[in-house]
Amino acid sequence: MEIRRFFVNPQDVCANGEIVVFGDEFLHMTKVLRYKTGYKAIVCANDGIERYCTIKQIDRDRAILSVDDEKVQDKKRVHVTLFAGLLKNNKLDFAIQKAVELGIDEVCPFLSSNTAETKFAKDRADKIALEAAKQCGSAYLTKVCELCDFQDVVKSFGDFDKVLFAYEDEKKNRIKDCDLSGKKIALIVGAEGGFTPEEARIAKEAGAQIVTLGRRILRAETASIVASALLLDTLGELDYE
Amino acid sequence: MEIRRFFVNPQDVCANGEIVVFGDEFLHMTKVLRYKTGYKAIVCANDGIERYCTIKQIDRDRAILSVDDEKVQDKKRVHVTLFAGLLKNNKLDFAIQKAVELGIDEVCPFLSSNTAETKFAKDRADKIALEAAKQCGSAYLTKVCELCDFQDVVKSFGDFDKVLFAYEDEKKNRIKDCDLSGKKIALIVGAEGGFTPEEARIAKEAGAQIVTLGRRILRAETASIVASALLLDTLGELDYE
Repeated sequence: MEIRRFFVNPQDVCANGEIVVFGDEFLHMTKVLRYKTGYKAIVCANDGIERYCTIKQIDRDRAILSVDDEKVQDKKRVHVTLFAGLLKNNKLDFAIQKAVELGIDEVCPFLSSNTAETKFAKDRADKIALEAAKQCGSAYLTKVCELCDFQDVVKSFGDFDKVLFAYEDEKKNRIKDCDLSGKKIALIVGAEGGFTPEEARIAKEAGAQIVTLGRRILRAETASIVASALLLDTLGELDYE
Repeated sequence: MEIRRFFVNPQDVCANGEIVVFGDEFLHMTKVLRYKTGYKAIVCANDGIERYCTIKQIDRDRAILSVDDEKVQDKKRVHVTLFAGLLKNNKLDFAIQKAVELGIDEVCPFLSSNTAETKFAKDRADKIALEAAKQCGSAYLTKVCELCDFQDVVKSFGDFDKVLFAYEDEKKNRIKDCDLSGKKIALIVGAEGGFTPEEARIAKEAGAQIVTLGRRILRAETASIVASALLLDTLGELDYE
Protein backbone atom coordinates (compact mmCIF):
# COMPACT_ATOMS: atom_id res chain seq x y z
CA MET A 1 0.00 0.00 0.00
CA GLU A 2 1.22 3.44 -0.87
CA ILE A 3 2.09 5.37 2.29
CA ARG A 4 0.04 8.57 2.42
CA ARG A 5 1.41 11.98 3.18
CA PHE A 6 0.09 14.37 5.84
CA PHE A 7 1.07 17.93 6.69
CA VAL A 8 1.48 19.39 10.16
CA ASN A 9 2.79 22.63 11.58
CA PRO A 10 6.43 22.57 12.74
CA GLN A 11 5.31 22.99 16.38
CA ASP A 12 3.36 19.72 16.15
CA VAL A 13 6.63 17.80 15.81
CA CYS A 14 7.46 17.15 19.48
CA ALA A 15 10.89 16.83 21.00
CA ASN A 16 10.09 13.31 22.23
CA GLY A 17 9.91 12.00 18.65
CA GLU A 18 6.13 12.14 18.47
CA ILE A 19 3.96 14.09 16.06
CA VAL A 20 0.43 15.28 16.69
CA VAL A 21 -1.97 15.49 13.73
CA PHE A 22 -5.00 17.78 14.20
CA GLY A 23 -7.79 19.37 12.22
CA ASP A 24 -8.49 18.60 8.56
CA GLU A 25 -5.49 16.34 8.22
CA PHE A 26 -6.71 14.37 11.25
CA LEU A 27 -10.17 14.06 9.66
CA HIS A 28 -8.66 13.00 6.34
CA MET A 29 -6.54 10.40 8.10
CA THR A 30 -9.21 8.91 10.35
CA LYS A 31 -12.58 9.62 8.70
CA VAL A 32 -11.81 9.58 4.98
CA LEU A 33 -8.98 7.04 4.90
CA ARG A 34 -10.10 5.26 8.11
CA TYR A 35 -6.58 4.82 9.39
CA LYS A 36 -6.21 2.88 12.64
CA THR A 37 -3.40 2.66 15.17
CA GLY A 38 -0.46 0.78 13.73
CA TYR A 39 -0.92 2.28 10.23
CA LYS A 40 2.06 3.95 8.55
CA ALA A 41 2.10 7.55 7.32
CA ILE A 42 4.56 10.12 6.02
CA VAL A 43 4.37 13.40 7.90
CA CYS A 44 5.82 16.66 6.57
CA ALA A 45 6.26 19.83 8.63
CA ASN A 46 7.38 22.22 5.91
CA ASP A 47 11.09 21.72 6.50
CA GLY A 48 11.96 19.46 3.55
CA ILE A 49 12.04 16.37 5.76
CA GLU A 50 9.81 13.34 5.27
CA ARG A 51 9.08 11.66 8.58
CA TYR A 52 8.09 8.01 8.28
CA CYS A 53 5.67 7.39 11.15
CA THR A 54 3.44 4.84 12.81
CA ILE A 55 0.10 5.85 14.33
CA LYS A 56 0.32 5.21 18.10
CA GLN A 57 -2.95 6.58 19.36
CA ILE A 58 -6.15 8.05 17.92
CA ASP A 59 -8.17 10.38 20.15
CA ARG A 60 -11.38 12.24 19.42
CA ASP A 61 -9.70 15.18 17.71
CA ARG A 62 -6.10 14.19 17.17
CA ALA A 63 -3.75 11.36 16.32
CA ILE A 64 -0.35 10.78 17.88
CA LEU A 65 2.31 9.27 15.68
CA SER A 66 5.82 8.09 16.48
CA VAL A 67 8.62 8.85 14.04
CA ASP A 68 10.35 5.69 12.80
CA ASP A 69 12.65 7.29 10.28
CA GLU A 70 13.49 10.62 8.69
CA LYS A 71 14.61 11.46 5.20
CA VAL A 72 15.69 14.83 3.85
CA GLN A 73 13.62 14.86 0.71
CA ASP A 74 14.04 18.35 -0.68
CA LYS A 75 16.36 20.97 0.74
CA LYS A 76 15.66 24.45 -0.52
CA ARG A 77 18.28 27.15 -0.87
CA VAL A 78 16.04 30.03 -1.84
CA HIS A 79 12.55 30.98 -0.69
CA VAL A 80 10.37 32.09 -3.60
CA THR A 81 7.11 34.02 -3.25
CA LEU A 82 4.84 34.24 -6.29
CA PHE A 83 2.64 37.34 -6.26
CA ALA A 84 -0.12 36.42 -8.70
CA GLY A 85 -2.77 38.80 -10.00
CA LEU A 86 -6.23 37.48 -9.12
CA LEU A 87 -7.68 35.52 -12.06
CA LYS A 88 -11.16 34.99 -13.41
CA ASN A 89 -12.98 31.63 -13.46
CA ASN A 90 -10.94 30.03 -10.70
CA LYS A 91 -7.85 30.03 -12.90
CA LEU A 92 -5.80 30.94 -9.88
CA ASP A 93 -6.63 27.46 -8.53
CA PHE A 94 -4.79 26.05 -11.43
CA ALA A 95 -1.86 28.46 -11.07
CA ILE A 96 -1.59 27.53 -7.38
CA GLN A 97 -1.63 23.81 -8.14
CA LYS A 98 1.23 24.20 -10.61
CA ALA A 99 3.17 26.54 -8.28
CA VAL A 100 3.02 23.85 -5.59
CA GLU A 101 4.29 21.19 -7.99
CA LEU A 102 7.19 23.38 -9.06
CA GLY A 103 8.17 24.20 -5.47
CA ILE A 104 7.04 27.81 -5.03
CA ASP A 105 7.03 28.50 -1.27
CA GLU A 106 4.30 31.08 -1.07
CA VAL A 107 1.54 32.38 -3.36
CA CYS A 108 0.10 35.84 -2.68
CA PRO A 109 -2.90 36.85 -4.81
CA PHE A 110 -3.38 40.55 -5.37
CA LEU A 111 -5.65 43.11 -6.99
CA SER A 112 -4.23 45.70 -9.37
CA SER A 113 -5.70 48.31 -11.72
CA ASN A 114 -6.54 45.83 -14.46
CA THR A 115 -7.75 42.92 -12.34
CA ALA A 116 -11.23 41.87 -13.43
CA GLU A 117 -11.94 39.43 -10.61
CA THR A 118 -12.35 40.60 -7.01
CA LYS A 119 -13.41 37.49 -5.08
CA PHE A 120 -10.86 35.19 -3.55
CA ALA A 121 -11.75 32.13 -1.48
CA LYS A 122 -8.72 31.53 0.69
CA ASP A 123 -10.12 28.30 2.20
CA ARG A 124 -10.50 26.83 -1.25
CA ALA A 125 -7.02 27.94 -2.28
CA ASP A 126 -5.53 26.45 0.91
CA LYS A 127 -7.22 23.14 0.11
CA ILE A 128 -5.88 23.16 -3.43
CA ALA A 129 -2.36 23.87 -2.18
CA LEU A 130 -2.60 21.08 0.40
CA GLU A 131 -4.00 18.56 -2.08
CA ALA A 132 -1.37 19.45 -4.66
CA ALA A 133 1.44 19.04 -2.11
CA LYS A 134 0.11 15.63 -1.07
CA GLN A 135 -0.47 14.53 -4.63
CA CYS A 136 2.90 15.57 -6.02
CA GLY A 137 4.86 14.17 -3.07
CA SER A 138 6.23 17.49 -1.87
CA ALA A 139 7.79 17.79 1.55
CA TYR A 140 6.67 21.41 1.70
CA LEU A 141 3.30 23.03 1.98
CA THR A 142 3.01 26.13 -0.20
CA LYS A 143 1.56 28.95 1.87
CA VAL A 144 -1.33 30.88 0.36
CA CYS A 145 -1.68 34.47 1.58
CA GLU A 146 -4.79 36.59 1.98
CA LEU A 147 -5.77 38.72 -1.00
CA CYS A 148 -3.95 42.05 -0.98
CA ASP A 149 -3.64 45.17 -3.11
CA PHE A 150 -0.87 46.11 -5.49
CA GLN A 151 0.18 48.80 -3.00
CA ASP A 152 0.68 46.09 -0.34
CA VAL A 153 2.77 44.07 -2.78
CA VAL A 154 5.07 47.03 -3.38
CA LYS A 155 5.27 47.80 0.35
CA SER A 156 6.49 44.26 0.97
CA PHE A 157 9.48 44.58 -1.40
CA GLY A 158 11.69 45.27 1.63
CA ASP A 159 11.04 41.71 2.84
CA PHE A 160 12.84 40.27 -0.18
CA ASP A 161 16.43 40.23 -1.39
CA LYS A 162 15.31 40.51 -5.00
CA VAL A 163 12.01 41.25 -6.72
CA LEU A 164 11.17 40.32 -10.33
CA PHE A 165 8.24 41.95 -12.08
CA ALA A 166 6.96 40.32 -15.30
CA TYR A 167 5.78 43.05 -17.65
CA GLU A 168 4.64 42.62 -21.21
CA ASP A 169 6.14 45.90 -22.39
CA GLU A 170 9.61 44.80 -21.30
CA LYS A 171 11.35 43.51 -24.42
CA LYS A 172 14.80 42.48 -23.34
CA ASN A 173 15.60 41.61 -19.73
CA ARG A 174 14.97 37.92 -19.16
CA ILE A 175 14.70 36.14 -15.81
CA LYS A 176 18.05 34.47 -16.46
CA ASP A 177 19.67 37.89 -16.96
CA CYS A 178 18.61 39.10 -13.48
CA ASP A 179 20.62 39.46 -10.31
CA LEU A 180 19.13 36.68 -8.20
CA SER A 181 21.53 36.77 -5.25
CA GLY A 182 20.02 36.36 -1.80
CA LYS A 183 17.76 33.96 -0.01
CA LYS A 184 14.31 35.46 -0.57
CA ILE A 185 13.01 36.21 -4.05
CA ALA A 186 9.64 37.63 -5.07
CA LEU A 187 8.16 37.07 -8.52
CA ILE A 188 5.23 39.24 -9.60
CA VAL A 189 2.92 38.17 -12.43
CA GLY A 190 -0.19 40.10 -13.40
CA ALA A 191 -3.79 39.07 -14.01
CA GLU A 192 -5.58 38.88 -17.39
CA GLY A 193 -5.41 42.64 -17.91
CA GLY A 194 -1.70 42.94 -17.17
CA PHE A 195 -0.15 45.95 -15.47
CA THR A 196 -0.48 49.63 -16.25
CA PRO A 197 2.69 51.55 -17.18
CA GLU A 198 2.22 53.43 -13.90
CA GLU A 199 2.30 50.18 -11.92
CA ALA A 200 5.44 49.06 -13.74
CA ARG A 201 7.05 52.41 -12.97
CA ILE A 202 6.12 52.17 -9.28
CA ALA A 203 7.50 48.61 -9.09
CA LYS A 204 10.72 49.63 -10.80
CA GLU A 205 11.22 52.64 -8.54
CA ALA A 206 10.62 50.41 -5.53
CA GLY A 207 13.51 48.22 -6.68
CA ALA A 208 11.96 45.49 -8.83
CA GLN A 209 13.81 44.10 -11.83
CA ILE A 210 11.41 44.26 -14.79
CA VAL A 211 11.48 41.07 -16.87
CA THR A 212 10.01 39.72 -20.07
CA LEU A 213 8.52 36.23 -20.41
CA GLY A 214 9.11 36.34 -24.14
CA ARG A 215 7.60 37.82 -27.24
CA ARG A 216 4.44 35.74 -27.23
CA ILE A 217 1.21 36.64 -25.48
CA LEU A 218 0.75 34.13 -22.68
CA ARG A 219 -2.50 33.74 -20.80
CA ALA A 220 -2.16 34.94 -17.23
CA GLU A 221 -2.17 31.45 -15.72
CA THR A 222 0.38 30.24 -18.27
CA ALA A 223 2.57 33.25 -17.48
CA SER A 224 2.67 32.39 -13.80
CA ILE A 225 3.65 28.77 -14.50
CA VAL A 226 6.25 29.70 -17.09
CA ALA A 227 7.74 32.51 -14.96
CA SER A 228 7.91 30.18 -11.95
CA ALA A 229 9.56 27.42 -13.97
CA LEU A 230 12.12 29.77 -15.53
CA LEU A 231 12.94 31.40 -12.19
CA LEU A 232 13.28 28.13 -10.24
CA ASP A 233 15.37 26.67 -13.06
CA THR A 234 17.66 29.70 -13.10
CA LEU A 235 18.02 29.48 -9.31
CA GLY A 236 18.93 25.79 -9.60
CA GLU A 237 15.93 24.99 -7.41
CA LEU A 238 14.63 22.38 -9.85
CA ASP A 239 17.93 20.49 -9.82
CA TYR A 240 18.76 17.42 -7.84
CA GLU A 241 21.26 18.09 -5.05
CA MET B 1 -12.75 47.29 -32.82
CA GLU B 2 -10.09 44.65 -32.29
CA ILE B 3 -9.04 43.14 -35.61
CA ARG B 4 -9.63 39.41 -35.55
CA ARG B 5 -7.15 36.79 -36.67
CA PHE B 6 -7.81 34.01 -39.18
CA PHE B 7 -5.63 31.13 -40.29
CA VAL B 8 -5.23 29.84 -43.85
CA ASN B 9 -2.97 27.37 -45.60
CA PRO B 10 0.10 28.84 -47.30
CA GLN B 11 -1.32 27.92 -50.72
CA ASP B 12 -4.36 30.13 -50.07
CA VAL B 13 -2.12 33.20 -50.17
CA CYS B 14 -2.21 34.05 -53.90
CA ALA B 15 0.53 35.69 -55.92
CA ASN B 16 -1.81 38.55 -56.86
CA GLY B 17 -1.94 39.76 -53.25
CA GLU B 18 -5.26 38.12 -52.49
CA ILE B 19 -6.05 35.53 -49.86
CA VAL B 20 -8.87 33.00 -49.96
CA VAL B 21 -10.48 31.92 -46.69
CA PHE B 22 -12.37 28.60 -46.75
CA GLY B 23 -13.93 26.09 -44.41
CA ASP B 24 -14.28 26.59 -40.66
CA GLU B 25 -12.43 29.88 -40.72
CA PHE B 26 -14.81 31.12 -43.43
CA LEU B 27 -17.79 30.06 -41.31
CA HIS B 28 -16.34 31.71 -38.24
CA MET B 29 -15.74 34.91 -40.19
CA THR B 30 -19.11 35.14 -41.93
CA LYS B 31 -21.61 33.17 -39.80
CA VAL B 32 -20.32 33.61 -36.25
CA LEU B 33 -18.77 37.08 -36.50
CA ARG B 34 -21.02 38.18 -39.42
CA TYR B 35 -18.21 39.94 -41.22
CA LYS B 36 -19.17 41.79 -44.43
CA THR B 37 -17.13 43.05 -47.36
CA GLY B 38 -15.01 45.99 -46.31
CA TYR B 39 -14.25 44.52 -42.85
CA LYS B 40 -10.63 44.25 -41.75
CA ALA B 41 -8.94 41.01 -40.68
CA ILE B 42 -5.50 39.68 -39.87
CA VAL B 43 -4.66 36.55 -41.83
CA CYS B 44 -1.83 34.18 -40.89
CA ALA B 45 -0.49 31.42 -43.10
CA ASN B 46 1.92 29.73 -40.69
CA ASP B 47 4.97 31.67 -41.84
CA GLY B 48 5.31 34.16 -38.97
CA ILE B 49 3.80 36.97 -41.05
CA GLU B 50 0.65 38.86 -40.10
CA ARG B 51 -1.22 40.02 -43.19
CA TYR B 52 -3.53 42.97 -42.59
CA CYS B 53 -6.39 42.48 -45.02
CA THR B 54 -9.72 43.88 -46.21
CA ILE B 55 -12.56 41.57 -47.22
CA LYS B 56 -13.23 42.14 -50.94
CA GLN B 57 -15.82 39.54 -51.73
CA ILE B 58 -17.91 36.95 -49.87
CA ASP B 59 -19.15 33.95 -51.83
CA ARG B 60 -21.20 30.97 -50.69
CA ASP B 61 -18.23 29.01 -49.36
CA ARG B 62 -15.27 31.38 -49.37
CA ALA B 63 -14.17 34.92 -48.80
CA ILE B 64 -11.58 36.79 -50.86
CA LEU B 65 -9.40 39.29 -49.03
CA SER B 66 -6.84 41.76 -50.32
CA VAL B 67 -3.62 42.25 -48.39
CA ASP B 68 -3.14 45.87 -47.30
CA ASP B 69 -0.01 45.42 -45.24
CA GLU B 70 2.34 42.75 -43.94
CA LYS B 71 4.25 42.52 -40.71
CA VAL B 72 6.79 39.89 -39.67
CA GLN B 73 5.43 39.12 -36.24
CA ASP B 74 7.42 36.15 -35.07
CA LYS B 75 10.33 34.65 -36.94
CA LYS B 76 11.31 31.23 -35.72
CA ARG B 77 14.79 29.85 -35.90
CA VAL B 78 14.10 26.33 -34.71
CA HIS B 79 11.15 24.01 -35.33
CA VAL B 80 10.07 22.22 -32.15
CA THR B 81 7.86 19.14 -32.04
CA LEU B 82 6.39 18.12 -28.70
CA PHE B 83 5.65 14.40 -28.47
CA ALA B 84 3.17 14.20 -25.60
CA GLY B 85 1.96 11.00 -23.99
CA LEU B 86 -1.84 10.78 -24.25
CA LEU B 87 -3.44 12.08 -21.05
CA LYS B 88 -6.60 11.21 -19.14
CA ASN B 89 -9.59 13.55 -18.70
CA ASN B 90 -8.82 15.76 -21.68
CA LYS B 91 -5.70 17.07 -19.99
CA LEU B 92 -3.97 16.95 -23.35
CA ASP B 93 -6.33 19.78 -24.42
CA PHE B 94 -4.75 21.88 -21.81
CA ALA B 95 -1.21 20.85 -22.71
CA ILE B 96 -1.94 21.68 -26.36
CA GLN B 97 -3.34 25.11 -25.47
CA LYS B 98 -0.21 25.96 -23.50
CA ALA B 99 2.10 24.54 -26.19
CA VAL B 100 0.46 26.86 -28.73
CA GLU B 101 0.92 29.89 -26.48
CA LEU B 102 4.58 29.07 -25.95
CA GLY B 103 5.21 28.61 -29.67
CA ILE B 104 5.57 24.83 -30.06
CA ASP B 105 5.26 24.08 -33.79
CA GLU B 106 3.80 20.62 -33.66
CA VAL B 107 2.21 18.39 -30.99
CA CYS B 108 2.17 14.63 -31.56
CA PRO B 109 0.22 12.57 -29.01
CA PHE B 110 1.38 9.00 -28.50
CA LEU B 111 0.61 5.80 -26.64
CA SER B 112 3.30 4.07 -24.61
CA SER B 113 3.40 1.15 -22.14
CA ASN B 114 2.09 3.20 -19.21
CA THR B 115 -0.50 5.29 -21.03
CA ALA B 116 -3.89 4.88 -19.36
CA GLU B 117 -5.97 6.76 -21.94
CA THR B 118 -6.44 5.40 -25.47
CA LYS B 119 -8.95 7.77 -27.09
CA PHE B 120 -7.82 10.83 -28.94
CA ALA B 121 -10.19 13.20 -30.75
CA LYS B 122 -8.04 14.91 -33.34
CA ASP B 123 -10.84 17.25 -34.49
CA ARG B 124 -11.23 18.55 -30.98
CA ALA B 125 -7.47 18.97 -30.56
CA ASP B 126 -7.25 20.83 -33.89
CA LYS B 127 -9.96 23.21 -32.70
CA ILE B 128 -8.19 23.84 -29.42
CA ALA B 129 -4.93 24.57 -31.25
CA LEU B 130 -6.68 26.95 -33.65
CA GLU B 131 -8.56 28.77 -30.88
CA ALA B 132 -5.42 29.08 -28.79
CA ALA B 133 -3.46 30.51 -31.74
CA LYS B 134 -6.19 33.07 -32.43
CA GLN B 135 -6.60 33.95 -28.77
CA CYS B 136 -2.90 34.37 -27.99
CA GLY B 137 -2.17 36.35 -31.14
CA SER B 138 0.20 33.83 -32.67
CA ALA B 139 1.18 34.09 -36.30
CA TYR B 140 1.60 30.32 -36.40
CA LEU B 141 -0.83 27.48 -36.22
CA THR B 142 0.50 24.60 -34.13
CA LYS B 143 0.01 21.37 -36.05
CA VAL B 144 -1.59 18.48 -34.16
CA CYS B 145 -0.66 15.01 -35.44
CA GLU B 146 -2.67 11.83 -35.40
CA LEU B 147 -2.22 9.57 -32.38
CA CYS B 148 0.76 7.26 -32.79
CA ASP B 149 2.64 4.60 -30.85
CA PHE B 150 5.88 4.94 -28.97
CA GLN B 151 7.52 2.82 -31.68
CA ASP B 152 6.47 5.40 -34.30
CA VAL B 153 7.92 8.18 -32.15
CA VAL B 154 11.28 6.40 -32.02
CA LYS B 155 11.17 5.66 -35.76
CA SER B 156 10.75 9.38 -36.45
CA PHE B 157 13.97 10.36 -34.60
CA GLY B 158 15.75 10.52 -37.96
CA ASP B 159 13.53 13.47 -38.94
CA PHE B 160 15.06 15.62 -36.17
CA ASP B 161 18.47 17.14 -35.55
CA LYS B 162 18.14 16.56 -31.82
CA VAL B 163 15.74 14.61 -29.65
CA LEU B 164 15.19 15.23 -25.91
CA PHE B 165 13.47 12.62 -23.77
CA ALA B 166 12.18 13.69 -20.35
CA TYR B 167 12.59 10.81 -17.93
CA GLU B 168 11.96 10.87 -14.20
CA ASP B 169 14.81 8.50 -13.41
CA GLU B 170 17.33 10.87 -14.98
CA LYS B 171 18.88 12.85 -12.13
CA LYS B 172 21.38 15.16 -13.71
CA ASN B 173 21.19 16.15 -17.37
CA ARG B 174 19.04 19.27 -17.71
CA ILE B 175 17.56 20.68 -20.91
CA LYS B 176 20.02 23.56 -20.75
CA ASP B 177 22.93 21.09 -20.62
CA CYS B 178 21.90 19.46 -23.92
CA ASP B 179 23.35 19.81 -27.39
CA LEU B 180 20.57 21.70 -29.15
CA SER B 181 22.27 22.47 -32.43
CA GLY B 182 20.22 22.14 -35.58
CA LYS B 183 16.92 23.36 -36.92
CA LYS B 184 14.51 20.62 -35.87
CA ILE B 185 14.19 19.53 -32.27
CA ALA B 186 11.89 16.92 -30.77
CA LEU B 187 10.88 16.94 -27.12
CA ILE B 188 9.28 13.81 -25.66
CA VAL B 189 7.22 13.94 -22.46
CA GLY B 190 5.33 10.97 -21.08
CA ALA B 191 1.78 10.47 -19.86
CA GLU B 192 0.63 10.04 -16.24
CA GLY B 193 2.36 6.68 -15.87
CA GLY B 194 5.73 7.87 -17.19
CA PHE B 195 8.05 5.70 -19.23
CA THR B 196 9.37 2.23 -18.55
CA PRO B 197 13.15 1.77 -18.18
CA GLU B 198 12.96 -0.24 -21.42
CA GLU B 199 11.40 2.71 -23.27
CA ALA B 200 14.07 5.06 -21.92
CA ARG B 201 16.75 2.60 -23.05
CA ILE B 202 15.22 2.34 -26.54
CA ALA B 203 15.01 6.14 -26.82
CA LYS B 204 18.60 6.56 -25.68
CA GLU B 205 19.91 3.91 -28.09
CA ALA B 206 18.00 5.62 -30.89
CA GLY B 207 19.89 8.82 -30.14
CA ALA B 208 17.74 10.78 -27.68
CA GLN B 209 19.31 12.89 -24.97
CA ILE B 210 17.69 11.87 -21.69
CA VAL B 211 16.81 14.89 -19.53
CA THR B 212 15.44 15.63 -16.09
CA LEU B 213 12.76 18.25 -15.40
CA GLY B 214 13.94 18.49 -11.80
CA ARG B 215 13.65 16.62 -8.57
CA ARG B 216 9.96 17.26 -8.01
CA ILE B 217 7.13 15.08 -9.25
CA LEU B 218 5.27 17.11 -11.86
CA ARG B 219 1.87 16.09 -13.17
CA ALA B 220 2.10 15.02 -16.79
CA GLU B 221 0.45 18.16 -18.17
CA THR B 222 2.66 20.36 -16.01
CA ALA B 223 5.71 18.45 -17.24
CA SER B 224 4.87 19.16 -20.87
CA ILE B 225 4.42 22.91 -20.21
CA VAL B 226 7.55 23.18 -18.09
CA ALA B 227 9.67 21.15 -20.52
CA SER B 228 8.42 23.24 -23.45
CA ALA B 229 9.12 26.51 -21.62
CA LEU B 230 12.62 25.44 -20.56
CA LEU B 231 13.47 24.17 -24.05
CA LEU B 232 12.16 27.23 -25.91
CA ASP B 233 13.91 29.51 -23.40
CA THR B 234 17.21 27.65 -23.84
CA LEU B 235 16.83 27.87 -27.63
CA GLY B 236 16.22 31.63 -27.36
CA GLU B 237 12.84 31.07 -29.01
CA LEU B 238 11.00 33.01 -26.32
CA ASP B 239 13.22 36.06 -26.80
CA TYR B 240 12.42 39.14 -28.79
CA GLU B 241 14.51 39.42 -31.94
